[in-house]
Amino acid sequence: MKNIAVILAGCGVFDGSEINEVVLTLLHIEKNNAQYQCFAPDIEQYHTINHITGEEIAQPRNVLVESARITRGNIKSLAELDVTQFDALIVPGGFGVAKNLSDFAINGTNAKVNEAVLSACKAFADAKKATGYMCIAPALLPFIYHKPQLTIGNDSDTAEALSTLGAEHVECKVNDIVIDKSNKLVTTPAYMLAQSIMDADAGIDKLVRNVLAMS
Amino acid sequence: MKNIAVILAGCGVFDGSEINEVVLTLLHIEKNNAQYQCFAPDIEQYHTINHITGEEIAQPRNVLVESARITRGNIKSLAELDVTQFDALIVPGGFGVAKNLSDFAINGTNAKVNEAVLSACKAFADAKKATGYMCIAPALLPFIYHKPQLTIGNDSDTAEALSTLGAEHVECKVNDIVIDKSNKLVTTPAYMLAQSIMDADAGIDKLVRNVLAMS
Repeated sequence: MKNIAVILAGCGVFDGSEINEVVLTLLHIEKNNAQYQCFAPDIEQYHTINHITGEEIAQPRNVLVESARITRGNIKSLAELDVTQFDALIVPGGFGVAKNLSDFAINGTNAKVNEAVLSACKAFADAKKATGYMCIAPALLPFIYHKPQLTIGNDSDTAEALSTLGAEHVECKVNDIVIDKSNKLVTTPAYMLAQSIMDADAGIDKLVRNVLAMS
Repeated sequence: MKNIAVILAGCGVFDGSEINEVVLTLLHIEKNNAQYQCFAPDIEQYHTINHITGEEIAQPRNVLVESARITRGNIKSLAELDVTQFDALIVPGGFGVAKNLSDFAINGTNAKVNEAVLSACKAFADAKKATGYMCIAPALLPFIYHKPQLTIGNDSDTAEALSTLGAEHVECKVNDIVIDKSNKLVTTPAYMLAQSIMDADAGIDKLVRNVLAMS
């Protein structure tokens, strides 16, 4: 049974992982007869956002502890991720990827990626294992791969920033994927474009199947 | 298009709504060409639980605000729920139902249901509209219906408590549902029994389809 590592960034689209994307990713891994282990960095979130008002809540929260809400406690610290134990890696989106796993949401083309995250993602790339990044998570890719081909949907500002960083951006519909064969890398827009859970589900279904097929 | 009200209880199985159950419920409502609006009471959570250690975190959190994480901010206060605008009601599970929407997890057969929750659920019962309750959410039903027929899976202690409160408990497998035709009421065990997201998905799929068929 193929074993997939999934890296989370908190719990909630505006300061963590996009919850629907995580649940659908894990559901499709199961549907394809594979298994998974979720990981998250044991660090404080960049901030905590009230998801109704968009305002900041003055409560420090931990990325690993909050991510555990989605996985019913079944999660490990990213420091424990041993690439040799896994066939592939998938990174769901949500602002947490651009605020906690990196600071792309704050610093754009001057962004830095969290060291443990960068190390884990690069280990999968170096081992030539298949990976899938969805929604805003492809913003990590210029730091991991040389000239990766990827999509974040059709947002021109984000696409331009990623091009500046060395990526080749390909426009993509919400129900489709972009495959960078030479890097064994699959991307899909998910909630960069999705207007419904079914929208996101279609692209994530394809991403998971193609990551597994290349692994 | 049928319109379904969904009541949430926070964000995370141990102190709020079970996240997978919520996402799968909304996904299946969409797949059946219906629409939904989520609601939650604007009250403080009973407590906040670290989902890795099970220990309490000393941070008060609000049920409505935390529930909004699952729905990307698209949620209303339960006080705004007008039963005439909806064809059916679904209540996903998670300990939040037995800690925030009621105190069943603390007081068992001496439990009380939050007044706004009881009023909303009773309004659907009085209007003879179809409803679905999953996981531990059927623990609300003896307070809403007269002698409801329901399942919480096969946990004998919980089943006995609900029988004491006047319900008729029926054992049920994770991929199945119990239908109380006279009350237009559907229940399924979900994460009272589920060992995987696919397990939960099978029963929730059936619950949603049958609630919609009766509405």
